[in-house]
Amino acid sequence: MFIDRALPFSVSRMTRSIARSGKVYLVGAGPGDPELLTLRAARLLETADVVVYDHLVTDAIMDFVAPEALRICVGKQRNNHTLPQEDINQLLSGLANTHQRVVRLKGGDPFIFGRGGEELQSLVANGIPFEVVPGVTAACGVSSYAGIPLTHRDYAQSCTFVTGHLQDGSTNLDWTTLVRPRQTVVIYMGLGGLEEICRQMMQHGARPELGVAVVQDGTTESQKVICGTLADIATRVADGQLRSPCLTIIGDVVRLHPQLQWFSRRP
Amino acid sequence: MFIDRALPFSVSRMTRSIARSGKVYLVGAGPGDPELLTLRAARLLETADVVVYDHLVTDAIMDFVAPEALRICVGKQRNNHTLPQEDINQLLSGLANTHQRVVRLKGGDPFIFGRGGEELQSLVANGIPFEVVPGVTAACGVSSYAGIPLTHRDYAQSCTFVTGHLQDGSTNLDWTTLVRPRQTVVIYMGLGGLEEICRQMMQHGARPELGVAVVQDGTTESQKVICGTLADIATRVADGQLRSPCLTIIGDVVRLHPQLQWFSRRP
Repeated sequence: MFIDRALPFSVSRMTRSIARSGKVYLVGAGPGDPELLTLRAARLLETADVVVYDHLVTDAIMDFVAPEALRICVGKQRNNHTLPQEDINQLLSGLANTHQRVVRLKGGDPFIFGRGGEELQSLVANGIPFEVVPGVTAACGVSSYAGIPLTHRDYAQSCTFVTGHLQDGSTNLDWTTLVRPRQTVVIYMGLGGLEEICRQMMQHGARPELGVAVVQDGTTESQKVICGTLADIATRVADGQLRSPCLTIIGDVVRLHPQLQWFSRRP
Repeated sequence: MFIDRALPFSVSRMTRSIARSGKVYLVGAGPGDPELLTLRAARLLETADVVVYDHLVTDAIMDFVAPEALRICVGKQRNNHTLPQEDINQLLSGLANTHQRVVRLKGGDPFIFGRGGEELQSLVANGIPFEVVPGVTAACGVSSYAGIPLTHRDYAQSCTFVTGHLQDGSTNLDWTTLVRPRQTVVIYMGLGGLEEICRQMMQHGARPELGVAVVQDGTTESQKVICGTLADIATRVADGQLRSPCLTIIGDVVRLHPQLQWFSRRP
C-alpha cells in the first residue's frame, strides 16, 4: 500500500476499486499515550487507506495515519452518538468493498467494552475478512501510570472490569459481586454514576474507607489522579473538577498510589 | 546509551560505575507475539543495559535486546522458581547501582499477576527511581487472537481476571463470585487446576454447558485453542495434549469463537 501514497488520489482510488474486497483490522489504540501503541497497530495506522475511529482516540495517535488516508470519526461521546452502532457496522463493510486496508481504531482494547465483537459479527455476515489487534486496555494503562497495581499479594487476588453506565443512563451493576473482598474493581467511564456507585457499594457491605482512585486523561500529559475512599471520593472529584471520560479504580491497592506514583514526579 | 554499544565492554562498564544510580523500567512484554510490544517497550529493550526477564517472555521478544546488553532470566516456571521474589527485588536494586537503564521485563502486563507492585515497593525502599510501561495483558491478547470478545452486549457485561493456582499449589477461588451470570472469567495459568475449577464452578451453580476455551501459546504461531463446556473441557484438553502455560476463558462469549476465529484461518 506504500505505492498508493505516491500515486495521484484518483488513480489510487481506481486501483482500489478494481481490487478484491479489502480487509478490516480491528485495532486497539491503547489508553492515550501514543508510545503505548503496539508495533502492529502503529504499522497498520501508517499504511491504512481508511481509519474509522472513536472520540477516545487521541490526536497524537491519529498523527500516525498517512496524510492521504481517509479519516472517519464515528463518535461516540456519552448521550451524543455521532453514528448508531448499526450504521458503523454497515460503514465498515461498505469501506472494505472500496478500500484494501480498513482500520477500525478503538480506544484501549477492542474486546473490552468496545463492541468489537458486534462489529466483527457484522463483517462475518457480509463475508469481509478481518484481523484483531489487541491493545493496552485502559485499566492497565491508567493503573500503570497512576502507580496502582491491579493485583497484589497483600491486597487483591483478582480484578474485575465493569462499565459504569448502561445504555439507558442508569447504573445497574452486580453489587454483591463487586463488594467481595481482596479484589480490584475497575469501572470504565464511571464519572457520571460515581456517587451512586459508591453509595451502592457501601449499602451492599463495602467498607466506607475502601480506597478509590479516579483518573482523568490517564497516560497523557494532562493526567489527573484523585484518590479517596468510598465515603469521600465523590466530593473530592467534584472539588477537583474532573471531566469524563475517567477511569475509576476501587480496592485496597489504591493505598499504594502515594508510594508508587511516578508519572507525576518525572523530572 | 547508544554510545555504550560502540565502546569496548570494559570501558562501557567503567563509565556506568561512575554514573549516578540508574533507573528501573518495569515493562510489560505483552502476550507473546513481538508485534504486540508497545513502541515504548521496544525502544527500551533496544537501549537497555540489562534486561531481567521471566520465562513467559518469548525468544522473539528477547531478540529486540541489544547484543551487548546483559540478560538475566529469573524464572519462574511453576514449582521451579529459579530465583525467589526477595532475591529478584534485591537484584533489581543492585543492578540499578551499576547500570543506567535496567529493564525488568514481564510477560503480559506488569500490574496483572506479575508482582510488579512488590518489586516497585522494594525499589522505593532502596531509593531507586522507576517507570512502569504497561503491556497487552494475556487475557486481551489471547482473546483477540482466539476471536473471543471478553465483553459483549448479548453475553457479558463484565470480565474478571483470576489466577488459577496459589503458592501452595491449591486452588482457592471465590466461586460464588465466579459463577455469577453475564460475565467472562479469565484464568491465568489455569491448566493444572482446570478439572477442579470446572467441578467447583458447577457445584456452585454454573451451568454444565457454560462455554470454556483453553488457549496454549496464545498469539504465537504455535497457538492452540480448545473449546468445550464446563462439563467436558478437562477431557478435551487432556485429549488435545495442551501444555502449560495456558489461559482459560469461561463464559458465553466462548460460543463466538467458531464464527470469529481469524488467526488460525490466515492464508
